[in-house]
Amino acid sequence: MRLRRDPRAPGYLAKDERVVPNPEEFKGRWKKSFDNDNPIHVEFGCGKGGFITELAIRNPAINYIAAEKAETVVYKACKKANDNEEIPNNLKFLYFDVSDCMAIFEKGEVEQIYLNFSDPWPKKRYAYRRLTHRSFLEKYEYILSETGEIHFKTDNKGLFAYSIEEFSAMNWLMKNVTLDLHQSDFEGNVMTEYEKKFSEMGYTINRLEAIKLKK
Amino acid sequence: MRLRRDPRAPGYLAKDERVVPNPEEFKGRWKKSFDNDNPIHVEFGCGKGGFITELAIRNPAINYIAAEKAETVVYKACKKANDNEEIPNNLKFLYFDVSDCMAIFEKGEVEQIYLNFSDPWPKKRYAYRRLTHRSFLEKYEYILSETGEIHFKTDNKGLFAYSIEEFSAMNWLMKNVTLDLHQSDFEGNVMTEYEKKFSEMGYTINRLEAIKLKK
Repeated sequence: MRLRRDPRAPGYLAKDERVVPNPEEFKGRWKKSFDNDNPIHVEFGCGKGGFITELAIRNPAINYIAAEKAETVVYKACKKANDNEEIPNNLKFLYFDVSDCMAIFEKGEVEQIYLNFSDPWPKKRYAYRRLTHRSFLEKYEYILSETGEIHFKTDNKGLFAYSIEEFSAMNWLMKNVTLDLHQSDFEGNVMTEYEKKFSEMGYTINRLEAIKLKK
Repeated sequence: MRLRRDPRAPGYLAKDERVVPNPEEFKGRWKKSFDNDNPIHVEFGCGKGGFITELAIRNPAINYIAAEKAETVVYKACKKANDNEEIPNNLKFLYFDVSDCMAIFEKGEVEQIYLNFSDPWPKKRYAYRRLTHRSFLEKYEYILSETGEIHFKTDNKGLFAYSIEEFSAMNWLMKNVTLDLHQSDFEGNVMTEYEKKFSEMGYTINRLEAIKLKK
């Protein structure tokens, strides 16, 4: 999500306990930071944060970490989460570049990664920026636990097809694949803001889950 | 393709050299039956045969085998191929049940398998009949050469998603995946009769290629 830089963001984020300004300091200690031993689920590219906030409300026994690159996006997501009356304690916001995720999370520290409507970077020369490019999959493999999963959804047909190729080439098992999530029998789908808007416009949503197979 | 049984079919097929009435007799000798050493490409479920006939015309150095279960469908496809003035010698028609393919082809005898718009069998209890069900993939693995490939296309989103799961679970590598074949940069696509009709109606076509990874 691209937004104009908001000058109020730094001040707000500095004061909000939900925001972790130097996340690399918590590497290997994320569960501790939540004061419990619950599994860690991360969303890379949380946008306005509606998805992860709703999940945090529904699943109090899971620790959620929402990440965005841009400070201003985190600021908006965080403010929105704070507007929520049921505001959960199991949700934190970080801002960092996903390519640095191995500096933020210890090997095997994450139980689940959500990738929702990631930027498709349609031009081939920017394929390396797609969050399902194999260089990212290698990093996810590192931070995910042995049973860890990636849950990925997108309306973008090009990105979805590309991602299937990448997961396949890197030996991930794909399951619960659908090319039309809202017509499928998948239960408990939480829509992102983007998903609501684009599915109303008639776009179908693709989704899959991927697990790294051990050799 | 479901058709009413045509009483003219048996007589026609018995006389046509292009039709092989007892294909199991040629197991392991298909190249010989074409009088050359060219690779064997097979289409399972050739329908009206437009796709495989066009390929046979375009690629004289490949031996094509079109298969259908029903005699009447083969009769129609064969008659149509024979109407073609450029009628190629590198095309044969068989009728047998795909589940018997290991009785027809020797281990490693086939270089490529085409699955085009296979019956989606949408009800779960009939999943075992889908031509990308893992029990079929095991048979294809047997008849395909070491470098053999499956080229699969369908407009059916459910069947495509299911097939990705099956290929993935059975450790096939998927490449050249697209959820919109006609808008992709794939070159040289030959449309089936079904594909022409349904893409004109606005359906997008999904396609992938799969190769069995050796352990």
